[in-house]
Amino acid sequence: MSGRRRSFWAWGYEDKLPDDEERQELADRIEGMLGFPERPIMEYPTLDDIELPDPRIEVPDELAAFATTDRRTRASHTYGKGYRDLVRGFHGDFSAAPDIVATPRNEADVEAVIEWATEQTVAVVPFGGGTSVVAGIQCDGDGYAGVISLDMGEMDAVLEVDEHSRSARIQAGATGPEIQEQLADHDLQLRHYPQSYEFSTFGGWVATRAGGHFATRYTHIDDFIESVRAVTPAGALETRRLPASGAGPDPNRFLLGSEGAFGVITDGWTRVQPRPPHRARATMHFDDYWDAVEATKDIVQARLYPANCRLLDANEAMLNELAFDGSHLLVLGFESTDHPVGDDLDRAMEIARKHGGSCPDGPTVEDRRTGGTDGDRGDSAEGSWRDSFFEAPYMFNALVSMGVLVDTFETAVTWEQFPDLHEALQENVVGAMQDECGAGFLSCRFTHVYGDGPAPYYTLLAPADVGEELDQWRTIKQAASDTLMEHGATITHHHAVGRVHREHYHEEAPDAYLDALRSMKRTLDPDEIMNPGALL
Amino acid sequence: MSGRRRSFWAWGYEDKLPDDEERQELADRIEGMLGFPERPIMEYPTLDDIELPDPRIEVPDELAAFATTDRRTRASHTYGKGYRDLVRGFHGDFSAAPDIVATPRNEADVEAVIEWATEQTVAVVPFGGGTSVVAGIQCDGDGYAGVISLDMGEMDAVLEVDEHSRSARIQAGATGPEIQEQLADHDLQLRHYPQSYEFSTFGGWVATRAGGHFATRYTHIDDFIESVRAVTPAGALETRRLPASGAGPDPNRFLLGSEGAFGVITDGWTRVQPRPPHRARATMHFDDYWDAVEATKDIVQARLYPANCRLLDANEAMLNELAFDGSHLLVLGFESTDHPVGDDLDRAMEIARKHGGSCPDGPTVEDRRTGGTDGDRGDSAEGSWRDSFFEAPYMFNALVSMGVLVDTFETAVTWEQFPDLHEALQENVVGAMQDECGAGFLSCRFTHVYGDGPAPYYTLLAPADVGEELDQWRTIKQAASDTLMEHGATITHHHAVGRVHREHYHEEAPDAYLDALRSMKRTLDPDEIMNPGALL
Repeated sequence: MSGRRRSFWAWGYEDKLPDDEERQELADRIEGMLGFPERPIMEYPTLDDIELPDPRIEVPDELAAFATTDRRTRASHTYGKGYRDLVRGFHGDFSAAPDIVATPRNEADVEAVIEWATEQTVAVVPFGGGTSVVAGIQCDGDGYAGVISLDMGEMDAVLEVDEHSRSARIQAGATGPEIQEQLADHDLQLRHYPQSYEFSTFGGWVATRAGGHFATRYTHIDDFIESVRAVTPAGALETRRLPASGAGPDPNRFLLGSEGAFGVITDGWTRVQPRPPHRARATMHFDDYWDAVEATKDIVQARLYPANCRLLDANEAMLNELAFDGSHLLVLGFESTDHPVGDDLDRAMEIARKHGGSCPDGPTVEDRRTGGTDGDRGDSAEGSWRDSFFEAPYMFNALVSMGVLVDTFETAVTWEQFPDLHEALQENVVGAMQDECGAGFLSCRFTHVYGDGPAPYYTLLAPADVGEELDQWRTIKQAASDTLMEHGATITHHHAVGRVHREHYHEEAPDAYLDALRSMKRTLDPDEIMNPGALL
Repeated sequence: MSGRRRSFWAWGYEDKLPDDEERQELADRIEGMLGFPERPIMEYPTLDDIELPDPRIEVPDELAAFATTDRRTRASHTYGKGYRDLVRGFHGDFSAAPDIVATPRNEADVEAVIEWATEQTVAVVPFGGGTSVVAGIQCDGDGYAGVISLDMGEMDAVLEVDEHSRSARIQAGATGPEIQEQLADHDLQLRHYPQSYEFSTFGGWVATRAGGHFATRYTHIDDFIESVRAVTPAGALETRRLPASGAGPDPNRFLLGSEGAFGVITDGWTRVQPRPPHRARATMHFDDYWDAVEATKDIVQARLYPANCRLLDANEAMLNELAFDGSHLLVLGFESTDHPVGDDLDRAMEIARKHGGSCPDGPTVEDRRTGGTDGDRGDSAEGSWRDSFFEAPYMFNALVSMGVLVDTFETAVTWEQFPDLHEALQENVVGAMQDECGAGFLSCRFTHVYGDGPAPYYTLLAPADVGEELDQWRTIKQAASDTLMEHGATITHHHAVGRVHREHYHEEAPDAYLDALRSMKRTLDPDEIMNPGALL
């Protein structure tokens, strides 16, 4: 897609890593805004600095055409992009590197990898965009002869488009922009925008049940999927392409969330749509957080289906430089391919006003068929929010290099249980940061909302002790995850389980169900070569 | 709920079985409308007439408080309510009767049944409303010491209501009206209206992935469920109650569609909502069927989310006495708990008009908060449609007693594939009826519609040879099911698999997936006592 080189340790393209000047500005901002002690600005690592073990196995002849043990390639397939990953990469610890990276060109190549790995007892780790934040792609290979990373990036085509039914068949390795570009020929879009959109892949989205950028309705990849094709050690598996079915437990749902533990997804049919020209948006300001929560609940329970319904608490609004006066912001957006949505926005704003919301910047209503903007004064929050949403991971790179502990965790819980959960998290997570780091900052936004509850997403920042970051992180993360479990929330709404959430996932899921999943795995992956340690 | 007695062989209450006069009218109508040869009007069976084998096993002491071998009870737990069931029941063949019927009062009773059945190698058949049309509850018990029907009807309570999150915890045996009545205290409704609503149960809906009466959006029980509790031979299993989660393959989806093969569902949390006062509806008439299909597709792809979007072909319109001029009808309805929906209806009608639709009766827009009807002339199609929808199964009883072969089958398929499928069904199914019965009538309506395809529902009528009905039905059903498989459609959109669809389900589902389901079953039900023969 691009000639630009991705960083071997950090999020994104090398040439977009914040430079020293940008980092100094960020340091000043963090210190000023959050009151953290002065942060160091450390050198980024180079490929020569890092510790990378020699491969335990050699590329066999039958895979030589598309597999390598190249140093940079192995390094950049070692970790995902969570805080723990960035810290280890930044400090040059690539001890968890895969031995071989294969980049299959087609399904026969995938089958060749699985066949060889079965014979040699090598662990196979499916790799999409490498953007996991839960160690979904990091496998130490204990008990195996080695680890092969199966990078699906060459299988990146939109294979078929059914314009009549608004569906497309997409290969697993296609990234967000690659899909966008290929569908543009048909004037169609997938409109699935996880924060990792630039690099993450269709197959990765299916394997991890990715959540998109929209707040309601069509945002989870689960809801887009018509069929999935996967290669398992027990053979290939393709579900029938259907708009819906009631025949037995939904086979697509067994692959959605399977995290490479049963096999590797090679392609799938998904629903697509035209670009929606009708849009309307507004940002409501609230003095009281719980009023804003009630307003959000009432809007979603009114079934207005906003595309955006993102409640930012005051900390989150400040962090995103959208408000500095302690206001909580509810960013509302509506869109339609077919009809104006101004009335929907009006009704949502009316509900918000009932709960004390105000809209100092006024709403914006657009009809982009004609290119014109029909509306009151522009509202910048939605647009600048979107920009900072996709740029945020680059900031995380810089923060890691400045001794700032930065992480996010997310969940979903009923409206009834949310207040207790939220207060317990404030107490336990901020408490853990203070204990570990002497200070800590926690902000919350709702990334998705449902009639029965929100999906709150928390960002945490603390001044880390360089060299101690991972221990400090572990304690804070444990406090967060334990609190989620105690308050009836899920360990993850859209970040997946991987290895980081496995312990708490096993607490959340019923034992008999986990046993049933293990028996499925034994059937599909009898030698347990598929992503061992993830999920199960 | 009601002191009225349900028929031991037919759909519904005994006192609602059509009498001789009603049957004569029906016969005249069928003969006149469809040109069938004169139909016999045969006596309904009485309990004394039927052949019911003696129970192979006795009620053990530990189950005596809630289990019976009573003749009427066993007879009425023998079959579901499909054509094949009604024919066998009508002719007095109850050879497939369960030996014992247990009616557990609580989960301990359920566990006692499973424990005893495991010891005695007795097959356990979970029973909700007994309304299966796919032989989901009919088990001959070959290879078992006997069969126990586990009727969940006594466990019929709404256990908890969370008004804030709009959710309720409901026991498996609660029927549609029982749920409605209990939720009314909270001004809430489930709003899940399968045709079997009057008798079918919450647990049955979950086990069979029931589809409700609405055409889009919240209509499948799958989309209502927050959590499920089930008792399996390997122990009880309860999923965490959540608005959403991305942690591994969705555990609820393993129980949704499990058809009693893994265990018996005892209760679950489900989303509920207030009664929607805002409504709007209209019936569009089309001269050309394919224009009507295009209009329906465009309305659903516009994401207007009609509650009703039911396209009746001319045969279906005639059968339901809504139009006799060869018009195809698109019955449109919108509803909201929060805001007027007249604009949505207007837009849908505008799309329909573009494709040649007209609306001779005009739209109706209601705001039932005030009790008033704001609108143009009344449109009777929607209301009379609903009445005949729920009364249709009583007509089926009568038709069976008059030698009319009557059945329905349903599917889902992409818009792209629908025309070929529809024409092939006309040819193959009408052809099979003509070959077998000398005449045949096939009508089609869309029960549900999706952006990527419709869920067409076919009703077939043919003059059967009394005594030969089951052979004739088998040939016709085989032609229908084979045609679905050949044209990329699903064997069932909401009627489930049971035993009738098992062969074609195994053709539809990938082999490796079926193997994986079998391994799950071995884990949860190691002695294979749970509903043997259903699904797997």
